Amino acid sequence: MFNQPPAIQFELPGWIGAYTQGISPMQAVNDRMSFVIEASRRNVSEQTGGPFAAAIFERDSGKLVSLGVNLVMTERLSILHAEMVAFSLAQRKLNTYDLGADCLLVHELVTSTEPCAMCFGAICWSGVRRLVIGARDEDARAIGFDEGPKMAERWIELQQRGIDVVHDIQREKAAAVLSEYLLAGGGIYNSRQRKLE
Amino acid sequence: MFNQPPAIQFELPGWIGAYTQGISPMQAVNDRMSFVIEASRRNVSEQTGGPFAAAIFERDSGKLVSLGVNLVMTERLSILHAEMVAFSLAQRKLNTYDLGADCLLVHELVTSTEPCAMCFGAICWSGVRRLVIGARDEDARAIGFDEGPKMAERWIELQQRGIDVVHDIQREKAAAVLSEYLLAGGGIYNSRQRKLE
Repeated sequence: MFNQPPAIQFELPGWIGAYTQGISPMQAVNDRMSFVIEASRRNVSEQTGGPFAAAIFERDSGKLVSLGVNLVMTERLSILHAEMVAFSLAQRKLNTYDLGADCLLVHELVTSTEPCAMCFGAICWSGVRRLVIGARDEDARAIGFDEGPKMAERWIELQQRGIDVVHDIQREKAAAVLSEYLLAGGGIYNSRQRKLE
Repeated sequence: MFNQPPAIQFELPGWIGAYTQGISPMQAVNDRMSFVIEASRRNVSEQTGGPFAAAIFERDSGKLVSLGVNLVMTERLSILHAEMVAFSLAQRKLNTYDLGADCLLVHELVTSTEPCAMCFGAICWSGVRRLVIGARDEDARAIGFDEGPKMAERWIELQQRGIDVVHDIQREKAAAVLSEYLLAGGGIYNSRQRKLE
């Protein structure tokens, strides 16, 4: 007989509450990225998921709206990349599927590593108007993560949708977390790539 | 003070239970697609979301594993395209983030409309080994949905990852649901495209 869950729930790791408690608005983009990179490192050390974190900020005030981390292996859901988690948390909080709605302040996504092919598409639907990136695509690929099929013109595509992109913010610090994860024996979970090897 | 939800939950529409009750394995791909297209129509008539549905089947037996529908507006989460819902339901049911794990039967995604840029990437991480498509990209764009930035070589990219693609299965029937949705005044919700107009 056919059956499927009537609902899907996923939980954020418990440490995020303490990590974000009393956090102040961060004026500098560098500070926002440091906060996100430290969350990616924490997600590894707490063993709550892959070495990736992403946050939604109010672009102009630097106020934190949501912090997501990679939960693919812990929640056993392939869509739960850090960016997807951050979008969902922010959208629930603001009660809208569009973080770019006219009645809202402008939002940005700050992500520890360049978004994969899925998250790249998701950015277009999220409503964020700026994307701030730490480690590069090739840094993730270097430790064995498949970033998926990406178009060369992807930054132009975002720009044409009114989404600014800022690259290489603390790239080395962000990439260091990826290397640490690999050295610690963290799971590289992109099954399609593995099958082809 | 910063706070965000400790968990995210989304619910499937109540009509899905009755719609899938007592469903038998479907040998023919056409039957699988008819089932999915009817779900997309039902999602509109029940006013539970956008005109899109997607299902995971065991490729060889035709047994239904999960049925997802578009829940973007109802759940106010931009990532909840039908394909993402179908992946999540199937992965929860099988307790794995990889529907292509060696210990499992082969799975496929049957979707009423060609996946958008986000869902295209998500397919690579889902573990499905076949993608069966009804309406084309241009059918969705024709009613105003932005499908996002897509690469011309996207089918080759999937093939290289061991994912077969089957096109135009009942395309006209699937596209008819999109037109009906537009005529009925359904919301076209891709905010980025709208802003640029």
